[in-house]
Amino acid sequence: MSTPFVAVLMGSDSDLPQVQTTLDTLNGLGIRVEARVTSAHRTPVRTHEFVKDAEARGCQVFICAAGLAAHLAGAVAAATVRPVIGIPVETGPLSGEDALLSTVMMPGGIPVATVAIGKAGAKNAAYLAAQMMSLADPSLYQRLKDDREENARAVEAKDAALQAKLAGK
Amino acid sequence: MSTPFVAVLMGSDSDLPQVQTTLDTLNGLGIRVEARVTSAHRTPVRTHEFVKDAEARGCQVFICAAGLAAHLAGAVAAATVRPVIGIPVETGPLSGEDALLSTVMMPGGIPVATVAIGKAGAKNAAYLAAQMMSLADPSLYQRLKDDREENARAVEAKDAALQAKLAGK
Amino acid sequence: MSTPFVAVLMGSDSDLPQVQTTLDTLNGLGIRVEARVTSAHRTPVRTHEFVKDAEARGCQVFICAAGLAAHLAGAVAAATVRPVIGIPVETGPLSGEDALLSTVMMPGGIPVATVAIGKAGAKNAAYLAAQMMSLADPSLYQRLKDDREENARAVEAKDAALQAKLAGK
Amino acid sequence: MSTPFVAVLMGSDSDLPQVQTTLDTLNGLGIRVEARVTSAHRTPVRTHEFVKDAEARGCQVFICAAGLAAHLAGAVAAATVRPVIGIPVETGPLSGEDALLSTVMMPGGIPVATVAIGKAGAKNAAYLAAQMMSLADPSLYQRLKDDREENARAVEAKDAALQAKLAGK
Amino acid sequence: MSTPFVAVLMGSDSDLPQVQTTLDTLNGLGIRVEARVTSAHRTPVRTHEFVKDAEARGCQVFICAAGLAAHLAGAVAAATVRPVIGIPVETGPLSGEDALLSTVMMPGGIPVATVAIGKAGAKNAAYLAAQMMSLADPSLYQRLKDDREENARAVEAKDAALQAKLAGK
Amino acid sequence: MSTPFVAVLMGSDSDLPQVQTTLDTLNGLGIRVEARVTSAHRTPVRTHEFVKDAEARGCQVFICAAGLAAHLAGAVAAATVRPVIGIPVETGPLSGEDALLSTVMMPGGIPVATVAIGKAGAKNAAYLAAQMMSLADPSLYQRLKDDREENARAVEAKDAALQAKLAGK
Amino acid sequence: MSTPFVAVLMGSDSDLPQVQTTLDTLNGLGIRVEARVTSAHRTPVRTHEFVKDAEARGCQVFICAAGLAAHLAGAVAAATVRPVIGIPVETGPLSGEDALLSTVMMPGGIPVATVAIGKAGAKNAAYLAAQMMSLADPSLYQRLKDDREENARAVEAKDAALQAKLAGK
Amino acid sequence: MSTPFVAVLMGSDSDLPQVQTTLDTLNGLGIRVEARVTSAHRTPVRTHEFVKDAEARGCQVFICAAGLAAHLAGAVAAATVRPVIGIPVETGPLSGEDALLSTVMMPGGIPVATVAIGKAGAKNAAYLAAQMMSLADPSLYQRLKDDREENARAVEAKDAALQAKLAGK
Repeated sequence: MSTPFVAVLMGSDSDLPQVQTTLDTLNGLGIRVEARVTSAHRTPVRTHEFVKDAEARGCQVFICAAGLAAHLAGAVAAATVRPVIGIPVETGPLSGEDALLSTVMMPGGIPVATVAIGKAGAKNAAYLAAQMMSLADPSLYQRLKDDREENARAVEAKDAALQAKLAGK
Repeated sequence: MSTPFVAVLMGSDSDLPQVQTTLDTLNGLGIRVEARVTSAHRTPVRTHEFVKDAEARGCQVFICAAGLAAHLAGAVAAATVRPVIGIPVETGPLSGEDALLSTVMMPGGIPVATVAIGKAGAKNAAYLAAQMMSLADPSLYQRLKDDREENARAVEAKDAALQAKLAGK
Repeated sequence: MSTPFVAVLMGSDSDLPQVQTTLDTLNGLGIRVEARVTSAHRTPVRTHEFVKDAEARGCQVFICAAGLAAHLAGAVAAATVRPVIGIPVETGPLSGEDALLSTVMMPGGIPVATVAIGKAGAKNAAYLAAQMMSLADPSLYQRLKDDREENARAVEAKDAALQAKLAGK
Repeated sequence: MSTPFVAVLMGSDSDLPQVQTTLDTLNGLGIRVEARVTSAHRTPVRTHEFVKDAEARGCQVFICAAGLAAHLAGAVAAATVRPVIGIPVETGPLSGEDALLSTVMMPGGIPVATVAIGKAGAKNAAYLAAQMMSLADPSLYQRLKDDREENARAVEAKDAALQAKLAGK
Repeated sequence: MSTPFVAVLMGSDSDLPQVQTTLDTLNGLGIRVEARVTSAHRTPVRTHEFVKDAEARGCQVFICAAGLAAHLAGAVAAATVRPVIGIPVETGPLSGEDALLSTVMMPGGIPVATVAIGKAGAKNAAYLAAQMMSLADPSLYQRLKDDREENARAVEAKDAALQAKLAGK
Repeated sequence: MSTPFVAVLMGSDSDLPQVQTTLDTLNGLGIRVEARVTSAHRTPVRTHEFVKDAEARGCQVFICAAGLAAHLAGAVAAATVRPVIGIPVETGPLSGEDALLSTVMMPGGIPVATVAIGKAGAKNAAYLAAQMMSLADPSLYQRLKDDREENARAVEAKDAALQAKLAGK
Repeated sequence: MSTPFVAVLMGSDSDLPQVQTTLDTLNGLGIRVEARVTSAHRTPVRTHEFVKDAEARGCQVFICAAGLAAHLAGAVAAATVRPVIGIPVETGPLSGEDALLSTVMMPGGIPVATVAIGKAGAKNAAYLAAQMMSLADPSLYQRLKDDREENARAVEAKDAALQAKLAGK
Repeated sequence: MSTPFVAVLMGSDSDLPQVQTTLDTLNGLGIRVEARVTSAHRTPVRTHEFVKDAEARGCQVFICAAGLAAHLAGAVAAATVRPVIGIPVETGPLSGEDALLSTVMMPGGIPVATVAIGKAGAKNAAYLAAQMMSLADPSLYQRLKDDREENARAVEAKDAALQAKLAGK
């Protein structure tokens, strides 16, 4: 069987700035990634075929980022039983609230694991994919634990900086 | 070329009570209809194939009814350049507001002609399809004009009834 | 009978920047257009008369753009049985959510084919009008198919560019 | 000049149960009323003509009740410079939030005096019309003052009842 | 009796830029105005006393502008049976949606005539007050009619400019 | 100085069913209560005077319940520097979302401590008042700690019941 | 190492009717489950300790159901790097929209895989957990594929029933 | 017993600009403050321990500022029976509406005293804490009364400035 990887799909290359956070976080956790521009609406057959092919080649988790009437995650989830994570992109007149509802309110049987609209969600999509893959990868599980502790220490460092700043005032 | 018709698709047979209004209105206007249960998420390939086949067999307009993260109209619109009308079904905890945004906020290039959530929309989807088809069908155009006048007279009759009721009081 | 055309109405000339996308897309598809500034509230009689006259002169589809309590599309739909497309303009403190509801939630019998708020909707209004007119115009139908394929290839080109960029990193 | 009166218009006779509160309150304040079923969308010309005629016959204030994409008040306001009061009817999947935005977010130059969605608004529309008419009618002004005091006493009576109930416990 | 006038109250002087439109429109229609900064929350007694005094001095209509949990119009309406117009100011994280609901959803018996959030509402508050006062002022009624026609001609002029621009292209 | 107590104000006696939870919880914690029906809009002066008098008689905390454009808590907060807790009542077409925004979005300087819409909020208003009063009442502080532990044990008991139920299946 | 299982946590036993769907679906897929009533707010330490203990005993995925200001999923996610799925329970005056935002809008670093509000989400939480566990369990992966096909056939059966019904008419 | 103080907690140091208003207002009222960066999600145990320790050291009121799925106030409220004030931070794609609902919609038994989203709320959190502490501190009670009067005079001064400006025009 082929090396496991995460497929990161975006409906438009204008989503890349937000998705870049996802790619960077996955890379930082040492996870192999394939990133593609493919659209549920403009290239539906190609999207379907990519999913089928990626699953066959060892794709473990699909991450899909789309804005407005965001159908990409749902369309991918319809083509695979691998976990699909949806990032509602912060774009358009409703700032991503449309994308959130279009991604999360999936009917029974076809789940999409939805994360927050925008930047926070883009980061968490990567962490969530890593958590899923760590179920079969003890060393990744350990890396996630270490990273979590590091994040806690970063909060503590910010608190220390605040104390210093307030004391110096 | 085959007889023109409208395809009415619903994501679940639980949508039928709302969609029945669409079917009845189309029948009342003398338009040939094909109604199908087919899901963007549970039977995506079958949905795609039905659209391709229906278009080849003379389908002029597609009407799609779906609730929650309603992707059916978008998925159909991705598979045809025939006009696609989306009815956001009034269902679930958000009463169809999720279905409205999932249906109407389509990205550029793949339009869905969206009507009102629920019963009003179910009726108007039929009228809208008829208006589109009447561009090439002068007798249907005339029937729509007659129907519009009849509706106006119904309002006038209700007004007359109100006057009688208020006078009788 | 006169040459078929699309009438594009806007409630205010401040809507023109968004409506320009509609005009450009219709022009690109070779569709004859009449654009007018006319208001449902400031010039209601003139709006009504324009619609009646335009329909008599061969107008096939009306596209109406308005913001806030957007009544233009509904007022036009009340005066014709030709299909009416409503673009909710992205303007004001609610970013067009008011315009969306004012346009889409039409009562039974008087449909407005509503597209997305703002720029995406402005583009799709043109495509939707073209799809409607192509029911009676096989060459336009073919142009829409060609355009759709071109759009698909544009997505593929963006994907190729992304692969190149990621590989070069 | 003819006797002043208030015209109460509703888009559908299904709105009558909510509008009845308006009629009863106006009657209670001794104000002459004409109630009509007339639709901005189904009978636009008749609506326009009724407004012109009513204004000529001494109508001082128009009260318009409509639900969904509620255009009636706006359409009436476009046909007169008499004050127009809009009641967003509580109906449909969005419980009148669509009617509120369609009524209140009017563009500059064509105001609609909007009251609350539903029953509270139906009552207040009558009070508001009476307040407007009392500008030229001192005895009505006095009746409104008396009524206000009576309402205050009703609150005090309810408070007394509560005290009795709590003491008796 | 004293000269009739409109009182324009704002909860904070930071609301003046939006309220200035109201003052200018009232001035343009030749209506006498008193403008005051007074707060329902920071100076409640003073607000109450101003309303009582203003009504005694001939104030016909109160216009109140406030943002956030906008109580000013309601507090004024509680102190008078003169018509009270509420302008929901476009401010804060919710862009005035909170102010709209706080202003319009008044309980039965104490109406506030609510206009649109922000600039459009600020203009319409002035027109609405003028419409109310014109019930007892035929010359103001005529000025409103003239102004309405002028506004219609302005739309026509913009349409003519658009035709020229499109023709010149 | 007089015995400390909590004043519980409601805008209408129709709010009593929701407010009863507040009264019962305060009674259960042994806190003296005065409950009154008084309206920010129908009896504004009486409301103001009650607050002034209650504060002089030893009222420590005011709890105000109101629905729709809920101004009661804000009006009370404007008349005292004692803490004011606002309960947005679940009523009307918007289910209390209007009451929430009208209560919580207070401008700087006049806080209202807002709790959840409806029943959960009615209970928490009592707990919050008790927490405030316990700052000067060690035995109440202890009762709150005991009550919290009891609530925790209730959750544990429900968990035990679930385990029994699942095991018995 | 111990047998892998899913922990299903609910904030209150009143959530059980919605959560029962989750339990039934997990059972139907042959996945071992532990269900617990534990609250982020009433029993925070016990919740934390259960999570730590469950993870040590082989818990692979946590599913958390909570309504209103739904913090349970976030609190669990803060205590583990195992994947956490959040079900926003449909309850309270806002029908679960508060629970959705409280669950999905997690800050960067602590993801919660959010599914739809209510019944659809309760079912999908189970499928999502199964998809995650199937990354390390090929036979579960196959069961998910079979189940998906069965669901597709169910749609086809409903379509056949609709065709029969329409033909019989 | 130790000197009473207010603990001001923020989930991230990026919240400091908004929280600074809280700190400045508390300082201006002469209240001792401890400010900390601590996260409900990244440092849950440390947050819990800080609350327990602060309460033991004499903390009277906790003020918690957090954005997005804002759990900090709820997590603190779960660990103490001291009053907890929640400031929904204005941040992210939904401008703090998510933070408002996550903070205010607490289940029965664990109240959070919620103030307005953003700057107005940050100021009012300080005033509310001071009001609570003044229940046991007569001199603070007097300072709050003086401050309130000063604020009223500031409104009067702004009104005077407006009168001067309008007169000079």
